Amino acid sequence: MAELRASVMTAAGKETVVLAYSGGLDTTCILAWLRDSGHDVVAFCADLGQGDDMDEVRANAEKIGAKHVVIRDLRREFVQEFVWPAVAAGAIYEDRYLLGTALARPLIARELLATAREHGATSVSHGATGKGNDQIRFELACLALQPGIKEHNFHVPATPKAPWSIDSNLMHTSYESGVLEDPAHAPPPELFQRTRHAHAAPDTPLEMEVDFSQGVPVRVSCQGRAITDPLEMVEFLNQAAGEHGVGRVDVVENRVVGMKSRGVYETPGVTILYHAHLDLECMVLDREVRRLKQYLATRFSEQVYGGLWFSPECEFTRKCLTESQRLVTGSVRLRLSKGNVEILGRSSPSSPYNQDLVSMDVQGDYTPEDAEGFIRITAVRLAEHMRVKAAAGVDG
Amino acid sequence: MAELRASVMTAAGKETVVLAYSGGLDTTCILAWLRDSGHDVVAFCADLGQGDDMDEVRANAEKIGAKHVVIRDLRREFVQEFVWPAVAAGAIYEDRYLLGTALARPLIARELLATAREHGATSVSHGATGKGNDQIRFELACLALQPGIKEHNFHVPATPKAPWSIDSNLMHTSYESGVLEDPAHAPPPELFQRTRHAHAAPDTPLEMEVDFSQGVPVRVSCQGRAITDPLEMVEFLNQAAGEHGVGRVDVVENRVVGMKSRGVYETPGVTILYHAHLDLECMVLDREVRRLKQYLATRFSEQVYGGLWFSPECEFTRKCLTESQRLVTGSVRLRLSKGNVEILGRSSPSSPYNQDLVSMDVQGDYTPEDAEGFIRITAVRLAEHMRVKAAAGVDG
Amino acid sequence: MAELRASVMTAAGKETVVLAYSGGLDTTCILAWLRDSGHDVVAFCADLGQGDDMDEVRANAEKIGAKHVVIRDLRREFVQEFVWPAVAAGAIYEDRYLLGTALARPLIARELLATAREHGATSVSHGATGKGNDQIRFELACLALQPGIKEHNFHVPATPKAPWSIDSNLMHTSYESGVLEDPAHAPPPELFQRTRHAHAAPDTPLEMEVDFSQGVPVRVSCQGRAITDPLEMVEFLNQAAGEHGVGRVDVVENRVVGMKSRGVYETPGVTILYHAHLDLECMVLDREVRRLKQYLATRFSEQVYGGLWFSPECEFTRKCLTESQRLVTGSVRLRLSKGNVEILGRSSPSSPYNQDLVSMDVQGDYTPEDAEGFIRITAVRLAEHMRVKAAAGVDG
Amino acid sequence: MAELRASVMTAAGKETVVLAYSGGLDTTCILAWLRDSGHDVVAFCADLGQGDDMDEVRANAEKIGAKHVVIRDLRREFVQEFVWPAVAAGAIYEDRYLLGTALARPLIARELLATAREHGATSVSHGATGKGNDQIRFELACLALQPGIKEHNFHVPATPKAPWSIDSNLMHTSYESGVLEDPAHAPPPELFQRTRHAHAAPDTPLEMEVDFSQGVPVRVSCQGRAITDPLEMVEFLNQAAGEHGVGRVDVVENRVVGMKSRGVYETPGVTILYHAHLDLECMVLDREVRRLKQYLATRFSEQVYGGLWFSPECEFTRKCLTESQRLVTGSVRLRLSKGNVEILGRSSPSSPYNQDLVSMDVQGDYTPEDAEGFIRITAVRLAEHMRVKAAAGVDG
Repeated sequence: MAELRASVMTAAGKETVVLAYSGGLDTTCILAWLRDSGHDVVAFCADLGQGDDMDEVRANAEKIGAKHVVIRDLRREFVQEFVWPAVAAGAIYEDRYLLGTALARPLIARELLATAREHGATSVSHGATGKGNDQIRFELACLALQPGIKEHNFHVPATPKAPWSIDSNLMHTSYESGVLEDPAHAPPPELFQRTRHAHAAPDTPLEMEVDFSQGVPVRVSCQGRAITDPLEMVEFLNQAAGEHGVGRVDVVENRVVGMKSRGVYETPGVTILYHAHLDLECMVLDREVRRLKQYLATRFSEQVYGGLWFSPECEFTRKCLTESQRLVTGSVRLRLSKGNVEILGRSSPSSPYNQDLVSMDVQGDYTPEDAEGFIRITAVRLAEHMRVKAAAGVDG
Repeated sequence: MAELRASVMTAAGKETVVLAYSGGLDTTCILAWLRDSGHDVVAFCADLGQGDDMDEVRANAEKIGAKHVVIRDLRREFVQEFVWPAVAAGAIYEDRYLLGTALARPLIARELLATAREHGATSVSHGATGKGNDQIRFELACLALQPGIKEHNFHVPATPKAPWSIDSNLMHTSYESGVLEDPAHAPPPELFQRTRHAHAAPDTPLEMEVDFSQGVPVRVSCQGRAITDPLEMVEFLNQAAGEHGVGRVDVVENRVVGMKSRGVYETPGVTILYHAHLDLECMVLDREVRRLKQYLATRFSEQVYGGLWFSPECEFTRKCLTESQRLVTGSVRLRLSKGNVEILGRSSPSSPYNQDLVSMDVQGDYTPEDAEGFIRITAVRLAEHMRVKAAAGVDG
Repeated sequence: MAELRASVMTAAGKETVVLAYSGGLDTTCILAWLRDSGHDVVAFCADLGQGDDMDEVRANAEKIGAKHVVIRDLRREFVQEFVWPAVAAGAIYEDRYLLGTALARPLIARELLATAREHGATSVSHGATGKGNDQIRFELACLALQPGIKEHNFHVPATPKAPWSIDSNLMHTSYESGVLEDPAHAPPPELFQRTRHAHAAPDTPLEMEVDFSQGVPVRVSCQGRAITDPLEMVEFLNQAAGEHGVGRVDVVENRVVGMKSRGVYETPGVTILYHAHLDLECMVLDREVRRLKQYLATRFSEQVYGGLWFSPECEFTRKCLTESQRLVTGSVRLRLSKGNVEILGRSSPSSPYNQDLVSMDVQGDYTPEDAEGFIRITAVRLAEHMRVKAAAGVDG
Repeated sequence: MAELRASVMTAAGKETVVLAYSGGLDTTCILAWLRDSGHDVVAFCADLGQGDDMDEVRANAEKIGAKHVVIRDLRREFVQEFVWPAVAAGAIYEDRYLLGTALARPLIARELLATAREHGATSVSHGATGKGNDQIRFELACLALQPGIKEHNFHVPATPKAPWSIDSNLMHTSYESGVLEDPAHAPPPELFQRTRHAHAAPDTPLEMEVDFSQGVPVRVSCQGRAITDPLEMVEFLNQAAGEHGVGRVDVVENRVVGMKSRGVYETPGVTILYHAHLDLECMVLDREVRRLKQYLATRFSEQVYGGLWFSPECEFTRKCLTESQRLVTGSVRLRLSKGNVEILGRSSPSSPYNQDLVSMDVQGDYTPEDAEGFIRITAVRLAEHMRVKAAAGVDG
């Protein structure tokens, strides 16, 4: 990795700091504080599709006194370098959360560090608080990529997050804190920003086909339209899923720091991709390969959730998962209807699915006697176990 | 295990055979054949809630010439000894199939063998064909429980299963073969027997609460009604889920014999329990315990699918899984709406969820500085890895 | 857990502190410092078989000014509650280290807390430094057992540990730091305290038999002597193994904090037990049970190494491992010779080993045709894979 | 895969058969039988370093009537394509067996099939009996590589194998059956062919250094000699290990068919490599990468033992394992002494071992306060667990 240029000290003690700036109240306070402390502040804002007006963000930062404002449209990198690998892995944390926030953090950290290098800054700042996952994800990524970096983590005296706090990007919107902290109570209906409730979804389902190549989505076809651009695909799927009520979950999850927290997520488009990919993968992958892959995918999900994208184990796991997807090429037809992703059919040029072999009506490569042999061999262990337990006087 | 009584040979060469009899065409042919071969046939039929008229089954078997007809209502054993452990385990094969058929086979085999012992029979017969999972599950269970048993597996020259073949019990109905063998084509709408399509579900959702004790459902409360009997719970949930379009999946799966096959399943009530249990478990189990439990549950699902319920490894796994559920006690409120099981809230007396601890607004047991320490320690490995890669000239 | 009695404050600000006291320089300094700070100090020393003169330890602590000196002989608890479960688990960290230090820490912490409760102390002190594993193991155990406990971790300005540092107990002696920090250089021969070098071992091997019940050693028989007392067994095995050069390893391992460190270990007696147990377990456990058990044992080793004995996951894992050992009963004959533990034979009343079945000379429960069937069924997946790869134009 | 040429039928019904011919009694009988049945027999013998006189094997086969005799020196392929990957994986079955026979089978099968293609043969024959692993390994490999191949497995009426049966190749010699079938009795001293007993080893140890590149041995340096040729390395190590009593194990293992069997193995040279590789790997691999790698290596060992080298899962696992070894480059110094492989030191250009970081005497990248933070964060889960158990009235 290229070495950080010597810190640009424009005056005695004056340091250039790159701040991960969102435009919100917290990071605006930090910006002001850094400015007042005599630092040159570079406000860095990543556009990950969160829907903010970036002109406004820029104007705001300049008004508060940022020396430079860097706004990077990272949506494409986000999709191709982070979301696609997660889709190909079938990544899902604790069986339900598709990791929309966790996947964005390493990208922001990487680009923040790149901005620091460009501006000769030796420190970076952010506003993530100490109890959640974000501080951990953000700082682990920074320390992994640039061990000597100085990090300022400002613990802005938070006004209670009311009614709840939100994080949003192209992939998902998450909600936590505030009224959501009581896990016994359902989130209020007005919370959801991107998806209708299943009941409010149109009565007419929407049918589409998703094509994958080596585990990665390459085309969405719907109502005569074919989309192949990654960013457009996600945007189209988000719109369709939102309309049809797809992608909500409400979970209690285990945070990195070990406590349990309640999160509500809307992951519209990628929920479709999750189901489509799972269906194709089961069609294509050999049983035993999939079992190994599933083990690795679970580890991958834990790594990503834990802020360990840039760790040696996550690097290794990603390579193995990529290798596992070599044959996962094909198409899945599905239907969105009232919150459901209904699989209608799938096909693949590289699937071991063999209609002749599977048919009960056709004799295959092996005979019923082979099955008997298989059973008798498999039963050797089982019978011995019963014998041993009886001999040892041990029951079930 | 009690020893099999000496085979009752009522005449030279005449043997008593217990036949797993369903009342269908295949097993009726086998009964006739066995009778014609001079055997005394005991027709055994397990009532697992498949919905057949058992009087008719009995009359039919007697008409064909069964010496005895044994009809056992095993629905309660099925729920308590097989379905409940699967719910507590969160058992799901290849991420989608809830194992409704696989869970029934070991029970049928066990009771068939008990019937054989009661009638002094040395052999058992069934009609499962060699390409599917059922022969393997059935015969493995028999050989495990009674290694010396003689098994007759009749390969009745099958008339092509058209339009598809069905297996049904209290927990689920499965469909395969026939028109379903082309995985690219959706199942015809008229196939489904137990669930409405999501679109046809009522506009008014149905809210209920499910209580678990140590991972096992103990009460369902809905519209002022409280059900605590296991069998009634499943029946109620089946009815509710069916009405609201819950429980359909369409998958390509890996059969025990290694080929891929397409299966369509309706598992109405247990789909509700699967989601409710998952939600409560995530609320209650320590993160690391759940990771270990998840590993074991995946193995359990593979074992059950593979016909290995009565194997040493499944025995061991069940004990570990039971141990894992010690604290999984609490309630889940949910809503059925248009095919969706929507979790509304959960509570538990034994959950580490700690509203004070998790709140962003309250200072907890540890400080932001602790989080910094945690991050710096965790980053030691990560930074060393970057250093080593740079030194070794290896990239990502 | 019994609540801690209210802290005994004998005077304003005066607090009772329990110090984990070893008698060495570091903890003596801490004792003096605590005394000078006006605390009532209870010096707690655990006798784990480290071989120190406990009268001297007591006299020393009293001389420095400990208000109470508590010396507990914990050797028996150590063997039965910590070493035996590790032997039954086959616990080994990173394939080589038998965890002698890691197993002792939770016991010391538990008894230190008990002493604190007895003396109405609200805080405990120790001298473990921040870079190694001991601080982490010690403090995690304390915080797990008594979350509110105050811990003083004194970072005594260490004089460089020369030539190396030592930790010793009944199970093992470990050496690290100092000249050992260069992993390219062999430890000096004079370092080893408990074992001869293999070359210096007697020319006459020593034969013995070890009996296990449910995975735990219950008798050692050697040269007409039979030992059944756990403590005596370990002491006898230590002496025999030391004499015959058994139990040395020299490793680079991964510390809890993520750095690599070099450790040299002498684990004389338990090395014999490790090999004997492994041999018996492989004789007894079903193949698939052992695979699951091996997974859990690896996790257990990581948990123990990481100071997580009193964690929910370690509690769960121990229960599963105990369950796995239900049938691991039998005897192993072995010979110590020149550093080697040579297995001579094994027998068990509960083993599925079946001489009739295994013999190539005897026809067993299944025929060569069964094996053919097994093979053909198993090959279905393999052949399909080759077909798919060829069709997809993908190679190896 | 190249298609099999049309079967060469030299006369009506006359078929060309390739026989895996060892020169021993069993395969000689099969050759005679095939010849008498009117087949053209191609006798194929793989030289894997088993030490037979290949001229004699050829003369014998010709005398009995083989139409062609094909003798292939596969020692180099064996080392590079099969032994090296196993060394790099650290493959070991059930913690003790280094897989010497299992690794040779897929190579023999592959070359047998190549010979069949060259001679236009449609069937292959071998003499492996149905109870052991060899039939399964051999036939699975053949069916995987060439699904349509006809296999003749001759069950030669075996004269009891007395005093034991032997399989030998460059990597190891295995012994089973006969007097070894009683696992309570030690193998007779005269059984061992390649290694001295530890007691009979020279009093002077032998020191050497082994260099690895990406997990694979690339040089052995010993007494001024440097060997870099793979075949020569193995031969040299075999000789040295044999002389110094290294490489014997005596185990009860689980065969593929589910029964337990007793095996005695001599694996001289590769035992050295196993230990050296383990040592280097622990020095180099990140902790978490090694945990993932260890999981995969255990699966790999099971796959290889089970005859599944040419399976999709083994292909996948090998690729992952290869990836894991990218940084496993460096040197290990060791000493053979009286049956022991004693590690003396190791070094690597790509190790995260960091003498400055690990030293107790030097302040590193993090402070004792960081460790406190790490501990407090880690303890959050533990304390919550204790709280929950107390609240739920559940004990340990």
